[in-house]
Amino acid sequence: MELIMLNPGSKEPLYIQLYKYFKVEIENSRLGEGEKLPSIRGLAKSLAVSKITVEKAYQQLMSEGYIENCDRSRYRVNKFEGTAFKVGLPPGPQVVSAVKEELDEGRVLYDFASGEMDIDGFNFSLWKRYISKAFFNKERLVGYGNIQGEEELRSEIAKYVHNSRGGKVRKEQIIIGPGVQSLLNTLCSILKADNSSIAFEEPGFKNGRHIFADHGFHIIPITMKTDGIDMEELVSSKTRLVYISPSHQFPTGYIMPIGKRNRLLRWAEEVSATIIEDDYDSEFRYFGRPIPALKGLDNGGNVVYLGSFSKVMPPSMRVSYMVLPDRLLPVYQKNSSLYNQAASTIEQLALAKFMADGHLERQIRRLRKLYYEKSLLFFDALKQVFGKQIEVNETESGLHTLITVKSDLRAQELVDRAMARGCRVASVQDYYWEHMPEKQPQMILYFSKIPASHMQIAVQLLKEAWFTAG
Amino acid sequence: MELIMLNPGSKEPLYIQLYKYFKVEIENSRLGEGEKLPSIRGLAKSLAVSKITVEKAYQQLMSEGYIENCDRSRYRVNKFEGTAFKVGLPPGPQVVSAVKEELDEGRVLYDFASGEMDIDGFNFSLWKRYISKAFFNKERLVGYGNIQGEEELRSEIAKYVHNSRGGKVRKEQIIIGPGVQSLLNTLCSILKADNSSIAFEEPGFKNGRHIFADHGFHIIPITMKTDGIDMEELVSSKTRLVYISPSHQFPTGYIMPIGKRNRLLRWAEEVSATIIEDDYDSEFRYFGRPIPALKGLDNGGNVVYLGSFSKVMPPSMRVSYMVLPDRLLPVYQKNSSLYNQAASTIEQLALAKFMADGHLERQIRRLRKLYYEKSLLFFDALKQVFGKQIEVNETESGLHTLITVKSDLRAQELVDRAMARGCRVASVQDYYWEHMPEKQPQMILYFSKIPASHMQIAVQLLKEAWFTAG
Repeated sequence: MELIMLNPGSKEPLYIQLYKYFKVEIENSRLGEGEKLPSIRGLAKSLAVSKITVEKAYQQLMSEGYIENCDRSRYRVNKFEGTAFKVGLPPGPQVVSAVKEELDEGRVLYDFASGEMDIDGFNFSLWKRYISKAFFNKERLVGYGNIQGEEELRSEIAKYVHNSRGGKVRKEQIIIGPGVQSLLNTLCSILKADNSSIAFEEPGFKNGRHIFADHGFHIIPITMKTDGIDMEELVSSKTRLVYISPSHQFPTGYIMPIGKRNRLLRWAEEVSATIIEDDYDSEFRYFGRPIPALKGLDNGGNVVYLGSFSKVMPPSMRVSYMVLPDRLLPVYQKNSSLYNQAASTIEQLALAKFMADGHLERQIRRLRKLYYEKSLLFFDALKQVFGKQIEVNETESGLHTLITVKSDLRAQELVDRAMARGCRVASVQDYYWEHMPEKQPQMILYFSKIPASHMQIAVQLLKEAWFTAG
Repeated sequence: MELIMLNPGSKEPLYIQLYKYFKVEIENSRLGEGEKLPSIRGLAKSLAVSKITVEKAYQQLMSEGYIENCDRSRYRVNKFEGTAFKVGLPPGPQVVSAVKEELDEGRVLYDFASGEMDIDGFNFSLWKRYISKAFFNKERLVGYGNIQGEEELRSEIAKYVHNSRGGKVRKEQIIIGPGVQSLLNTLCSILKADNSSIAFEEPGFKNGRHIFADHGFHIIPITMKTDGIDMEELVSSKTRLVYISPSHQFPTGYIMPIGKRNRLLRWAEEVSATIIEDDYDSEFRYFGRPIPALKGLDNGGNVVYLGSFSKVMPPSMRVSYMVLPDRLLPVYQKNSSLYNQAASTIEQLALAKFMADGHLERQIRRLRKLYYEKSLLFFDALKQVFGKQIEVNETESGLHTLITVKSDLRAQELVDRAMARGCRVASVQDYYWEHMPEKQPQMILYFSKIPASHMQIAVQLLKEAWFTAG
């Protein structure tokens, strides 16, 4: 191993410098698969830094899948692969003719409108074993289960949120539910005593807004800028409740930088506001550090954190969770019997053990790699097929992107024409609460469900739909 | 077999006469286990009645577990047992001392406050096989699933509701959800355009009322009489939305007779009202014919039917459903993407196959027998232990009863004193939306979870709690 040079005078924290050093070493294969990294204690000593600095660097590398823990305190390099698929090769004639045939039957061939899981994204045999094991808890299965969610699962989630998103979380703060929408119904009930309005990003999470509107909240759409929600608009709206997805805004994909996060938290402290942070796909950040969650920065206890397993586990398994700040716990507990949670006990027990055995981390690494490779294929295909006919909001995370189509067609026409070619796409205009400003049509494209080997032809179909005279 | 005498001049329909004849024969062991009943065609011919009359009688006997289908059109007698347990035997000294020991640890020994399932009420190995089979649907498991619930399960539920509760039901009318509360959130959203208030039975379903209140509905409590909700109060309230449990009201246990059902339906037709029928435990009617569901009598299409599997399957499996009348379907469909249902796909697929293979019917028969026997033990124990110190609302269905305790103690004191003896009980006063009228304290007691062999001692503990000087 080369000499490691750290610069204590740099604005960049030491652990980031150390993390970047190892990242480059691994990416350039100077550190090979299976090779052990220096022990934490040894490296800290030789670099004259604290053990915590080394630990944080290693944790970062591990969370991004570069290294894994091999025994208690030692780490070794994971297999590192660049792009596993050949990009840009046209599909063979067999694929093309099979696609043409299915097209004639009017089916959805490629679903760009859904963030569902890649069929190879999950080890179902392994999961089946965990489900089977959960059947041993017969006594618990004949009951309704813990009203807040099974205790062992809440413990595992507390650990998971702490490790992956920062901040201290206790299992008592966690409420499990069969989906984010179900949790929002509970949340509406908890928050309505103190709030009659809520601010949402515009465009933003459609279903969430409707649930709050159903509960009688006044919805205040706030312009979404490239660095997140418009703070001036938010402040002058006078509301004290806001729903955001700062780590990868839906649907724009924009990320809220740290400075603005702190500003938002300060605002919440000043006016005693509550921030609902929807962290729906933070696991899929392919480069750089995960953006810290607001929850992890929140000293004032003003953030409700919403997490879901529906991107990292098969979404047919319905388990989501929220972390309530301490100040909302008494309100929840007072009426907790009214919010009997409704996630399947079998699935909760299986998931708790799956997480305890380290399988969730492995599963996330597996998916991150799979989707990273797919994202490369996807963005390359977009570039190659469309050239300057579209503009791409290329972000380095998530399972979808937003494109602006340089066409005179209306958004709905683009959606319909794509569907006629067997491609389901969603238009950004559907995610506006009020009218979308006049501009060129924007589409949301998910790549997670498109088979890697079909990426090129799928994108080609979109182009034919949009840029071939109807 | 004796000569069967039917009286065509009687007010009682012929099929009921026929059904009663066989019932008595079987209960008196004049028709023994395994014995075949006459063929439908043969019996119809020899009695000079229509085949439908015989079919209906047999169907009734089958639904009550007296007979089973052995080949296509033939039926044979099931095992018939009276009371399987010896009633009234004091528990052995070992049980008593074990109970005393656990009491010292402050645990809940006997949960009279919960309708959870008897630990021997379900064949988990069989269910596990169905769950395992569902894993073959890998393609469907990587998706979010049908927004309204998996299609094959909706088909099975449509058949089940039709067969057990009458009325024609199409799978398109069925919405699946992970619990009644989750379905009510959807329902509130559908109904709020046309309704701002809702009538509820008083006392009645606590959590349901809170969900409607959370959605901004004005709650109108209507006095519960021994024949169901007070019609005069309902009519003069001017609301056009009412939530009832006519087949076994919760918590009183009262049953709404057919005349009043028709009156309620006529009212709904006249004022275009919507009736929400919560049919939470209709499977457990131990004597006589099941009361027909309002849904089955509803020609006007004004009834929303709510059903749940949580009493007949382990409640940890979260699957409930509602049947929407045609007129509400367009409202639902317009916003269906907002109500993405959240029951686990694996459990839905397993349940659909379980039902298709006839296991649900068997399971219901098994539980009906188990709970019937327990109910005998329970009511005998109440009578023997308490004598005239309590008054019992003895109904012939369900898993709970309501008792009036002839004591000067307040309801909360009774609850606390029972808890000090390790018995959890619920007070009826908690199920009032407004103040409960001044009367002697009433308690709700479930017997489903109390082990049969402990029934006597459990009831004894209640008596000691309430009638021994503190």
